[in-house]
Amino acid sequence: MTFRHARTGEGKKEIFGAMRIYADNAATTKLSGTALDAMLPYLTDRYGNPSSLHEDGAAAAAALLEARETMAGLLNCAARELSFTSGGSEADNQALLSAASWGAAHGRRHIVSTEFEHPAVLRTLEYLEARGFGVTLLPVSAEGIIRPEQVSSAIRPDTCLVSVMAANNEVGTVQPVKEIGDLCRRNNVLFHSDAVQAAGHIPIDLSEMNVDLLSLSAHKFHGPKGIGALYLRRGIRPVSLIRGGGQERGGRAGTENVPAVAGMAAALRESCGKLEENADYIARMREELISGLERIRGAYLIGGRSRRVPGIVNFCFEDVESEPLLLLLDADGISASAGSACSAGALEPSHVLRSMGVPDRLARGSLRLSLSEYNTPEEISRIILSVTSAVSRLRKENP
Amino acid sequence: MTFRHARTGEGKKEIFGAMRIYADNAATTKLSGTALDAMLPYLTDRYGNPSSLHEDGAAAAAALLEARETMAGLLNCAARELSFTSGGSEADNQALLSAASWGAAHGRRHIVSTEFEHPAVLRTLEYLEARGFGVTLLPVSAEGIIRPEQVSSAIRPDTCLVSVMAANNEVGTVQPVKEIGDLCRRNNVLFHSDAVQAAGHIPIDLSEMNVDLLSLSAHKFHGPKGIGALYLRRGIRPVSLIRGGGQERGGRAGTENVPAVAGMAAALRESCGKLEENADYIARMREELISGLERIRGAYLIGGRSRRVPGIVNFCFEDVESEPLLLLLDADGISASAGSACSAGALEPSHVLRSMGVPDRLARGSLRLSLSEYNTPEEISRIILSVTSAVSRLRKENP
Repeated sequence: MTFRHARTGEGKKEIFGAMRIYADNAATTKLSGTALDAMLPYLTDRYGNPSSLHEDGAAAAAALLEARETMAGLLNCAARELSFTSGGSEADNQALLSAASWGAAHGRRHIVSTEFEHPAVLRTLEYLEARGFGVTLLPVSAEGIIRPEQVSSAIRPDTCLVSVMAANNEVGTVQPVKEIGDLCRRNNVLFHSDAVQAAGHIPIDLSEMNVDLLSLSAHKFHGPKGIGALYLRRGIRPVSLIRGGGQERGGRAGTENVPAVAGMAAALRESCGKLEENADYIARMREELISGLERIRGAYLIGGRSRRVPGIVNFCFEDVESEPLLLLLDADGISASAGSACSAGALEPSHVLRSMGVPDRLARGSLRLSLSEYNTPEEISRIILSVTSAVSRLRKENP
Repeated sequence: MTFRHARTGEGKKEIFGAMRIYADNAATTKLSGTALDAMLPYLTDRYGNPSSLHEDGAAAAAALLEARETMAGLLNCAARELSFTSGGSEADNQALLSAASWGAAHGRRHIVSTEFEHPAVLRTLEYLEARGFGVTLLPVSAEGIIRPEQVSSAIRPDTCLVSVMAANNEVGTVQPVKEIGDLCRRNNVLFHSDAVQAAGHIPIDLSEMNVDLLSLSAHKFHGPKGIGALYLRRGIRPVSLIRGGGQERGGRAGTENVPAVAGMAAALRESCGKLEENADYIARMREELISGLERIRGAYLIGGRSRRVPGIVNFCFEDVESEPLLLLLDADGISASAGSACSAGALEPSHVLRSMGVPDRLARGSLRLSLSEYNTPEEISRIILSVTSAVSRLRKENP
C-alpha cells in the first residue's frame, strides 16, 4: 500500500523505544496546534467577559461573533442559528427538549429515534417518556443503517420529532440524513441529527440537509473539550438547560467559554479545509486495517463497508473478551476501545451492537479502532500485528 | 499610602503609552500563569478521555482525581462530594434542582432565598415556582446583608431549602453564611450558598460552614472559563441537567473538560495559598479607592464597609448615568462595570441595588469596580482621578 502523505510521529510518546499509537479518536482527539493557537490569546491577555461594556469585553464578544460566523460559514447556516454549549451531550439534551417543547405546544407528544443513538439522546428520551411523551426506537440493520422507510412508517400524526444520528459513534456507519430529513419536512416533523461523529469528518451542509436541529462536539474534530454547538433552525425556540443571565440570546446562561469557542471554530475550519484530503488518507488506512483484521479467524467486521466515516472500525472476535484484549493492546502501546468511552468499563454488551443484531457472545469481544490524520500507515501495520497476536494469545489462555 | 507589595504591570496592554487598567474582576479574571501551566499538558499531549480504558485515558482520569482531591483538601470536604460543572450558573441550577427534588420527595415545596441573588439562582427559582414550589425572597438591608433572623422567620414547616449567596457579586458584601447554615441545620432544611464571588477571595471551610450545597466558578479566581464545581453534601442526590453517559457518578453526562478542571484546581490552590496576603493587599487598595471616590460630591458607597470581599466596590453617583460613565472610563483605559456582566447593557436598574433600597435615580448611576492581585496602587490613583473627572464632565454636559 502506498500513501500520498508522508506523516511523521513527531511529538508522540515513546514506549520501550516505539511510539504509542492512539487509535481511539472516536472517544476524543488530540487538540490541533491550530486550535490551541486560536485559544491562547483568550487564555492569556484577552480574558474579558463578552458581556462587559468595555474594550476587554468587546474583544471577547468579537471573538465569539467571529467564531460563530466562521462556523456558520462552514456549516452553511446563519450565525444566529448556532448556539454554544458545553459539549455534544448538552447539545443533544437541549435539542431534544427544545423540539419536545415545540411538540407539546402543538399537542404532539410522539418522538421517533433509533436504538443505537448516543446515551445523551437515549437518556433524554427516557426523561421525556417519563413526562408523557411516546417514543418509538427503530431497530438497526446488520449494516448499521437506518432506512428512510423505517422512519416513514414510524411517523404518526402526533409525531413532533425524529432524531437520527449522522454517524454512529461505535461502528462509524453514516445514516441517510438528507433523505430522512426530506421526509420529515414533508410530514411537518422536526428533525434532529446528532452529528458529533460526523462534523469535521464528512461534509455537513445545513442548507441542503433538511435538518432542523444538529449537535456538534469540538473535541471529536481536534478542538478542545468542554465545548460544543447546537444548530437550531430559525424559529425554533431553545429550551434552556441552564437558567440565569441572558447569554446565547437567552438560550444558555453562564459566561461564555471564549477560548474554547475560538478553538472550536479554528478546529472546524481546519478539519473542513482538509476534509477530502483527510478522508482519503484516513479511509485508506481504515481499509488496510479492515483487510488485516479480517484475516483473523472468527473476526467479524461490524456494519457495512460502504457507508462509513473515514476513521471508525469495529470488529468482534469470537471467544475473546474485550477487556483483556484492550489491556494487551494497551501494554503493547495501543489505545483502543470496546465501544463508546461513555460506557467503557460497563459489563453489558454495547446497546449499539445489540440494536444491530450482533449476538451477545460476539459483542463481548468487540474492539473499536478509530483513526485520525495523526495516524500513519506504519501504525496500522503495528495494530494489525498486535491485535492478531493478542486475540490468538487470549484464545490459547481461555480455550 | 504604602504597600507591602511591589507589583509590576508586566504583560499589561498599553493605551497611548499608559497601561490599561482592568477593574472588572467580578465579571471575570485574568487566567493565572500557574493555572495555564496546569492546563497545557492536557491541551497538548495528555488529551485522553478519562473514561477510556487505556494509558491515555488513565492519565486523564488521574488528572481529574487529583484535581478533585486538591479542591476537596482546600475546601475541606470529601472528594466525592465535589462534582464538576461548566461553570457557576450550571452549579447554581443543579444545586437548586437537586435540593428541590429532595424537597418534593419529602412533601416540602417551599424555598427561602434573597432578592439579591445571582440571576442563575433567581431564574431557577422562577422555574421551580412555575412547577408548584413556593418561594420567599428576603429583602436586603441597606448594608447589603441578610440577617439570620430574617431567614429564621421565613422558614416554614414545608421549607426544603434556603439559598443565600456567600458574597454578593454587585456590591461585594459578605453574608453570615455559617450562622444561616446553623439555623437551617437546626430546622432540618437544606442550605445552598452561591460562593462564586467568595471562593478564592475569603476563607471557605466546608467542615464548619453548615452548608449542604455550594457553587463555585473557576474564572472568578483566576481559573479558566467554562468550568465550575458543585459541592453536594454526602447523601444529597444530584439531579442531572445533562443526561447521557455516566460521568460525574451519573450526575452530569459528557466528556469531562480535563484541561479546565486541572486549571481550576491549580487556580484555587494558588488563590487559597495566598488568600490572606492577597486579601490584605487588595482590601487596602479597595479602601484607598473608597476614600478617593467618597470625596466626589453626590457619591454614595453601596453596602456597609465592614463585611466585604476584598476586591469589590460599588458606588452610585447622583445625576450620572452608568453607561456614559463606563464609556468615558473605557476611553481612559479603565475596564469597569455598572453591575453584573450578565445584565450589562440592560436598561433596568440593578435588582441588587433595588433589593437594598437604593432609589432608582441613584441606581442608574451605579459603578462597580472590582480589583484583583494584578492591580496596583498606582492604578487606584488613576481610577480615582478618571472617575472624578468623568463624573464632573457628565454632570456639566447634562446638568
